[in-house]
Amino acid sequence: MSISDSPSRLEAVSAPHQPDVTPALDDLYRGFEQELLIPLWTEIGDLMPVHPRSKAVPHLWSWDRLLRLAERAGELVPVGRGGERRAIALANPGLGGRPYATPTLWAAIQYLMPGEDAPEHRHSQHAFRFVIEGEGVWTVVGGDPVPMNRGDFLPQAGWNWHAHHNAASTPMAWLDGLDVPFQYVVDAQFYENGRDVISDAERITPERSRSELLWGHPGLRPLSVAPEPGGSPLLNYKWEFTNQALKDQLTLEKGGFGGTVEPGHAAIRYVNPATGGDVMSTIRAEFHRVVRGAETAPVLETGSSVYAVFDGSGTVTVGDTTWSVTRGDLFVVPSWQEFSVRSEAGSTDSDEGALDLFRFSDSPIFEALHLNRTEIGG
Amino acid sequence: MSISDSPSRLEAVSAPHQPDVTPALDDLYRGFEQELLIPLWTEIGDLMPVHPRSKAVPHLWSWDRLLRLAERAGELVPVGRGGERRAIALANPGLGGRPYATPTLWAAIQYLMPGEDAPEHRHSQHAFRFVIEGEGVWTVVGGDPVPMNRGDFLPQAGWNWHAHHNAASTPMAWLDGLDVPFQYVVDAQFYENGRDVISDAERITPERSRSELLWGHPGLRPLSVAPEPGGSPLLNYKWEFTNQALKDQLTLEKGGFGGTVEPGHAAIRYVNPATGGDVMSTIRAEFHRVVRGAETAPVLETGSSVYAVFDGSGTVTVGDTTWSVTRGDLFVVPSWQEFSVRSEAGSTDSDEGALDLFRFSDSPIFEALHLNRTEIGG
Amino acid sequence: MSISDSPSRLEAVSAPHQPDVTPALDDLYRGFEQELLIPLWTEIGDLMPVHPRSKAVPHLWSWDRLLRLAERAGELVPVGRGGERRAIALANPGLGGRPYATPTLWAAIQYLMPGEDAPEHRHSQHAFRFVIEGEGVWTVVGGDPVPMNRGDFLPQAGWNWHAHHNAASTPMAWLDGLDVPFQYVVDAQFYENGRDVISDAERITPERSRSELLWGHPGLRPLSVAPEPGGSPLLNYKWEFTNQALKDQLTLEKGGFGGTVEPGHAAIRYVNPATGGDVMSTIRAEFHRVVRGAETAPVLETGSSVYAVFDGSGTVTVGDTTWSVTRGDLFVVPSWQEFSVRSEAGSTDSDEGALDLFRFSDSPIFEALHLNRTEIGG
Amino acid sequence: MSISDSPSRLEAVSAPHQPDVTPALDDLYRGFEQELLIPLWTEIGDLMPVHPRSKAVPHLWSWDRLLRLAERAGELVPVGRGGERRAIALANPGLGGRPYATPTLWAAIQYLMPGEDAPEHRHSQHAFRFVIEGEGVWTVVGGDPVPMNRGDFLPQAGWNWHAHHNAASTPMAWLDGLDVPFQYVVDAQFYENGRDVISDAERITPERSRSELLWGHPGLRPLSVAPEPGGSPLLNYKWEFTNQALKDQLTLEKGGFGGTVEPGHAAIRYVNPATGGDVMSTIRAEFHRVVRGAETAPVLETGSSVYAVFDGSGTVTVGDTTWSVTRGDLFVVPSWQEFSVRSEAGSTDSDEGALDLFRFSDSPIFEALHLNRTEIGG
Repeated sequence: MSISDSPSRLEAVSAPHQPDVTPALDDLYRGFEQELLIPLWTEIGDLMPVHPRSKAVPHLWSWDRLLRLAERAGELVPVGRGGERRAIALANPGLGGRPYATPTLWAAIQYLMPGEDAPEHRHSQHAFRFVIEGEGVWTVVGGDPVPMNRGDFLPQAGWNWHAHHNAASTPMAWLDGLDVPFQYVVDAQFYENGRDVISDAERITPERSRSELLWGHPGLRPLSVAPEPGGSPLLNYKWEFTNQALKDQLTLEKGGFGGTVEPGHAAIRYVNPATGGDVMSTIRAEFHRVVRGAETAPVLETGSSVYAVFDGSGTVTVGDTTWSVTRGDLFVVPSWQEFSVRSEAGSTDSDEGALDLFRFSDSPIFEALHLNRTEIGG
Repeated sequence: MSISDSPSRLEAVSAPHQPDVTPALDDLYRGFEQELLIPLWTEIGDLMPVHPRSKAVPHLWSWDRLLRLAERAGELVPVGRGGERRAIALANPGLGGRPYATPTLWAAIQYLMPGEDAPEHRHSQHAFRFVIEGEGVWTVVGGDPVPMNRGDFLPQAGWNWHAHHNAASTPMAWLDGLDVPFQYVVDAQFYENGRDVISDAERITPERSRSELLWGHPGLRPLSVAPEPGGSPLLNYKWEFTNQALKDQLTLEKGGFGGTVEPGHAAIRYVNPATGGDVMSTIRAEFHRVVRGAETAPVLETGSSVYAVFDGSGTVTVGDTTWSVTRGDLFVVPSWQEFSVRSEAGSTDSDEGALDLFRFSDSPIFEALHLNRTEIGG
Repeated sequence: MSISDSPSRLEAVSAPHQPDVTPALDDLYRGFEQELLIPLWTEIGDLMPVHPRSKAVPHLWSWDRLLRLAERAGELVPVGRGGERRAIALANPGLGGRPYATPTLWAAIQYLMPGEDAPEHRHSQHAFRFVIEGEGVWTVVGGDPVPMNRGDFLPQAGWNWHAHHNAASTPMAWLDGLDVPFQYVVDAQFYENGRDVISDAERITPERSRSELLWGHPGLRPLSVAPEPGGSPLLNYKWEFTNQALKDQLTLEKGGFGGTVEPGHAAIRYVNPATGGDVMSTIRAEFHRVVRGAETAPVLETGSSVYAVFDGSGTVTVGDTTWSVTRGDLFVVPSWQEFSVRSEAGSTDSDEGALDLFRFSDSPIFEALHLNRTEIGG
Repeated sequence: MSISDSPSRLEAVSAPHQPDVTPALDDLYRGFEQELLIPLWTEIGDLMPVHPRSKAVPHLWSWDRLLRLAERAGELVPVGRGGERRAIALANPGLGGRPYATPTLWAAIQYLMPGEDAPEHRHSQHAFRFVIEGEGVWTVVGGDPVPMNRGDFLPQAGWNWHAHHNAASTPMAWLDGLDVPFQYVVDAQFYENGRDVISDAERITPERSRSELLWGHPGLRPLSVAPEPGGSPLLNYKWEFTNQALKDQLTLEKGGFGGTVEPGHAAIRYVNPATGGDVMSTIRAEFHRVVRGAETAPVLETGSSVYAVFDGSGTVTVGDTTWSVTRGDLFVVPSWQEFSVRSEAGSTDSDEGALDLFRFSDSPIFEALHLNRTEIGG
């Protein structure tokens, strides 16, 4: 390779811990460039920092503006094979204009018009939907129609066939989360198109999916099926159960018993009922409720998260940044940035008006590889 | 040791594959006895059979007669420290008059009179209760009062403090299952007495235990507590969920989808929500529903089971034995005996009158040690 | 069942924590007997003790006397199909004349005459051989001839075909260990006869088995084969490696570094190179070296062990019993009996004359089921 | 954020599966840019390909030229705190001038002059050294001096303190492998400086490290220490064992038995003796020997690898690229590129002149997350 074609560019600079700048060093650097080599001593500060210093930055997206643009896209952009989905992704301003909410996570608003279908496909990327507004859409996973309503969480492990259809008379919008950036950077991704049109049998709209009939009972599993590795066999975690679990934790706290993470802070993790572990091998999903007037202790964690404000309002602090947030807003917490939230002032005696946060993160990657760390900040 | 004291007794017999009976052989056998030695060649047929040949035999206990004796015990035998529990155990006729339902499992009727308390203790033996009749008793586990009602399954992992109290105006009877024989034979058991009297705070009678508030939501786990190894953190698997799960499987079958184990045979396993695995490390618990007119395929499995007929009636075949069974009856399936059930004739279109069977077994021991085998019989 | 046929026998006795002896109680007990029931209150002291109280007792077998009887059996008892092996088992005096060293473990001397073959069979019972004296026998496992020499440990996971042949001009004796009692009591055992005669190709006598060529390299595994669950793919753990590992630990200790279990006490566990875990799912094997003048701290453990004195001499204490032991002796440590050893006095500076102990135990059963406990005694 | 500051740039283009280019669409795209949003329909072809299409390209680095530049760096660049190491990294030409051999792996030549020390540090990045040429350097890990000689493999799990010192009179060069790019992109990395100078006690040069005394015996583990999660406790996998394991596999093949991966292709994986699994949670290391005249079947795998030609010569094909390779050369196989090697022609009857390849890869990441796939190509 000629030097001019090499993507490597090395400049000898006079700096502490750097070799003396001499013509010989310059020659050496030209040799490195020609041979596609880069020395550690010019890179170590960036490559091996004392702690994670993410290129991703904390950022907040306002739901109102997101939704307005999604509606406009609903008018202008057809959904169908090729584009596949009317999904509009958060692009973290620190990540060079890529459609990445964080270095590992994709987060998008997906918007479906009345009567529209999104065609069937499958991919190795793990995905989920979390419904912020609306009802009337069914996602059809492996032929099983799964209803979607506000507050429902629908994991979709990699390589399952899936399509969507909107049986309602109104548009619907939800949050899509995937591990697209992660699988992109490590070169893991596979993709395949399915049928262009789903069958009439899949167009029925049952109240509960077949997956819920089999796996949606607390502490019970069917003997008839063995779950597959990679992801949860339960395709809809209905809001009523999530809400009840959070209420129950706060009831325990009021009774003087443990149950909440910290005072006024209830939280659940969505888990695979066949393993008790995360719903997917790369994505963790949780729901946090912070009652009025309560705040969470500042925490630093390896790995990145995306939060959706499901309800309530309050203030959020990520590193040096503090925002006011309200229903529908989305924000990002990069790796090892101190994070805390404070719910709007009010009576802590009731769950009314609590700050409800849906969260997803790449924590399972860190835990599987023994790279996770947590530290209490403040 | 003198020969006469030795528990070993060897007799030289003339038989195929046995050494010639000579005075020298007799001398050798006397030497073996003196030195506490036993040769393989006199034992191998019994010790190393072609397949498991359990000393335990199939046996059926009639609920009516059990209950009558339990009631009589209620009048004559006080419950309290020392005897600890008014529990009456099944003694398999093949097991030499020991209180063992199978070589590994203890099964007993426990009977509590109105107002009675059973004192607090803990033991390394894993235990559960399954309520065949009645309501109004609370088992207090680690200070958490857990209600018991017909059809409820209450696992109780080893070394948890527990007591019972009967807040009702009528006696109550339930099935107790433990791994007492297993822990006895391998010498694993520890035991400790707790308080003689539980506190008034534990005498409250909530509808749901604290464990259910934390762990009784499908596919959700609390972030606030880490479960302990050894057993399920969920202390009551309420009948309404079990019943619904079985109904749902039959609904799937009627819709033409998988869901049942075989036609007309729905079944669930009770699992630890923190792991998806068995509720205890030595005991598996399941519930089977066989609709009217249906029958199950004959199966041979390593390991032994105890069944309780929760509802319905039908016939059960274990090895060469067939019984008619009805509500409340208890029976035993020893290791590697062919097993099948047939529900009473009737309309298979409805769940009404189905044969409902609670089962517990020692399967987790076999699976953990890679000793499990299954074979379809017939 | 008539009362007289019932194996259950209950006697109402006047004792603390027992119900008042009355005719009514007597009637109740007769009812229990007839219905094959046994109440907890008459059994609890034996069944649920404060800590394990094994029926097995500490016992020592002298190698000299064992060997003499084995030699005599060599003259009188042919080896071959039916008896299968010329194996002479230790019968713990507390276990009712059964050929059980402990409630879960079988330990036997196996003795093969020059030129003799033991026919091929397989069984679900896990087995191993440990060579106390001699050389010249090959065990043929799945067609792979494995040499046996003094100090070698040869695990033999369940359901592998195996035969033995003695290519030497002298008899040979070794220790056989199996989980026969455990699999017998839980009814897990399967057995199958193989070929009566092994092929000439298996009669070759290589220095290393094929299993050692594949799996006998430290920290390296072959890419060509996937190991099977249940047991180690390495069929011979040669003495030279065991001895070197123990020497190395003592070298570390002399250099002021950690390495030994306690001063003067080196120990290794034989592990499955494919998992780092125990060589078999029910049996653990270890080798301990206690240098002259050293002693081990008293320990109580759940589970039972059999020890073979490989070399050296000293004193062993199990519970209230103390023995002098010397080369070849075998002894048993029941569950939860305090155990310690003291090596014969002498210079601790050298490994010469150390007390070398081979040990096998049922610990993997306890660990797999979370029933293990350990306590420092003294 | 003003549009001009946004890193997102969207251009409406007329293309299949793209919405009609209209002023309204253009307005929408401006809105997306302003709000830091990117639609899926403009990105899906790149982001979600049918199979992995790595930015990394196959590339070969010549050992001669690498070594010459490393020697020159030895003269010009001091080793010491700040630069930390005289390491020169391969920069894959497809990865934008970053010092990344593949998207997840760092590979570098490290070069140490006689008498030089590299100062102590630790980092969360997993690392290893593999010695291509020379001897006389000790890496000091947690105070344990570990010798390095040609063919030795030295894993260094994350967060262990380590330093190097060269006790020889000649320079030494080895291959460094780390997961630097992976930990960089997911933001996992931590770093800490240790002592500037190692102690005299660590400057001793034993033949075997303490880790080898404890863990370097086949199928044996010390009872005295519990291994830590994250990486292998064995710090040197000496060449003599690797070489012997490969010879043994070829011996088995010659005897007509399984043992090699395919004809003439022997291979081992370096494993953690405490688990049987990979030496580190993110890096797999293997050694392959292809005898003269043999070739390997083409294979596609998810994940990327770096190979070092340890000895011999032959041709390597990666995707559409074929190179001649010889001793010391390094090359890269990106994810899902078909890979095969052919050893130089010659007698296959002897190991002499075989093509010996050291390989490391990111496969553990894929397996831990259930993202691994393999396909036979050709």
